[in-house]
Amino acid sequence: MRTIEICLTPNLSELFSVRGKAVVVTDVLRASSSIVAGLAKGIPKIAPVSSVAEVAHFTEQGYRSAGERDGKKIDGFDLGNSPLAFMAAASEKLPIVMTTTNGTRAIAKAQNAREILIGCFLNLAAVSSYLSGFDGDILILCAGWRGNFNLEDTLFAGALAQEIMQKNTDISAKNDAVYAAKLLFETTKNNLEKAIEQSEHRRRLKGEQAKKDVTFCLQTNTFSNVPHYQAAHLVNRTT
Amino acid sequence: MRTIEICLTPNLSELFSVRGKAVVVTDVLRASSSIVAGLAKGIPKIAPVSSVAEVAHFTEQGYRSAGERDGKKIDGFDLGNSPLAFMAAASEKLPIVMTTTNGTRAIAKAQNAREILIGCFLNLAAVSSYLSGFDGDILILCAGWRGNFNLEDTLFAGALAQEIMQKNTDISAKNDAVYAAKLLFETTKNNLEKAIEQSEHRRRLKGEQAKKDVTFCLQTNTFSNVPHYQAAHLVNRTT
Repeated sequence: MRTIEICLTPNLSELFSVRGKAVVVTDVLRASSSIVAGLAKGIPKIAPVSSVAEVAHFTEQGYRSAGERDGKKIDGFDLGNSPLAFMAAASEKLPIVMTTTNGTRAIAKAQNAREILIGCFLNLAAVSSYLSGFDGDILILCAGWRGNFNLEDTLFAGALAQEIMQKNTDISAKNDAVYAAKLLFETTKNNLEKAIEQSEHRRRLKGEQAKKDVTFCLQTNTFSNVPHYQAAHLVNRTT
Repeated sequence: MRTIEICLTPNLSELFSVRGKAVVVTDVLRASSSIVAGLAKGIPKIAPVSSVAEVAHFTEQGYRSAGERDGKKIDGFDLGNSPLAFMAAASEKLPIVMTTTNGTRAIAKAQNAREILIGCFLNLAAVSSYLSGFDGDILILCAGWRGNFNLEDTLFAGALAQEIMQKNTDISAKNDAVYAAKLLFETTKNNLEKAIEQSEHRRRLKGEQAKKDVTFCLQTNTFSNVPHYQAAHLVNRTT
């Protein structure tokens, strides 16, 4: 019997073992969505780093820089954290170095996993399908917000857990967070945008561009790529 | 405008300020329910302590000992962590010293709050009513299970947040956990026992006695006392 569990924030990750598992990192608004959309559209690879100081090492090698702090593009960077901007930049076919508040931190927490994947609503079915063929336990790691629980990542975790468990009767829920996240998704799925409208994150993202980004990030199954973390980069898995 | 927020586990408590706030500690299965029921039935006071080693100091002064580890009564103790046993013991009118896995830890985390209250389904309306008259911010602190998220405490937190916000239009939700917990409660309230049946905690509590305890703990508004933590003891607030 395989298991699936959800870690609601990176601040709880010490309570979970990642060894031997596939860890799906999700930061729906907006890092995961930018990564999935950018790689889908032709960005060759993305290096996620924790600090602004690490970025120069990559830009000197021709990488484009991307990053946000508290939801805003970092001064002097080529890109912020908008999936629409990542898609527009993809035509250049240049690699990107990316630092975000929560997303890269979650990837760092999962370093010892057997596989690290990036999931969001945009590639929900592709991730679910990939994990159906994975022969080990699954952990969904929500990036959260500054270490705390957030709604949008939990809703995606619930959507993914539900889809995986429906497809695979040999996978059982290991913790209460799976039950809760599935129920939250089930209750809100017919109007995700309305639910997210009431979240803290949505209230922080101001302006028309942010509104467009959020609407885009809540679309389901726009892309079929499954980004994996390997050799310090996120790349599309070629299966 | 007053605010209400929910901390889903003590392992996230460092992300919250408790200063000036009323903190409601909840450990539905079963420490909070035992405290509320025991004090309602005549136990004069309960000293919550973190370790078994601290218990002797109190029993030498005539306290009864109560405690569990991993859901089981500690060897040599007078009581475990059953609200029904606490009620039966209340006729002796003796104080109790109590150590539990999660509940006492949550109380310790809230030490710098303006007030610390104990809440559970058994005294939901009384706590909600008390907090409606409290003139500061409110934090509901879920005891969780070994630092992790659990379903039963989250459902109670949602029930309490919902009732307080319905009664007090000047109180707004401060974090996403309030939205999520309210929605989870709203979705499960017509059959709480069925929802809890699927929780990790319920699966750990084995046997007939535990089943009776869980059914009892999920009753709403059986008691009208609001235990407060003061002078290192939990006592009924006399208002």
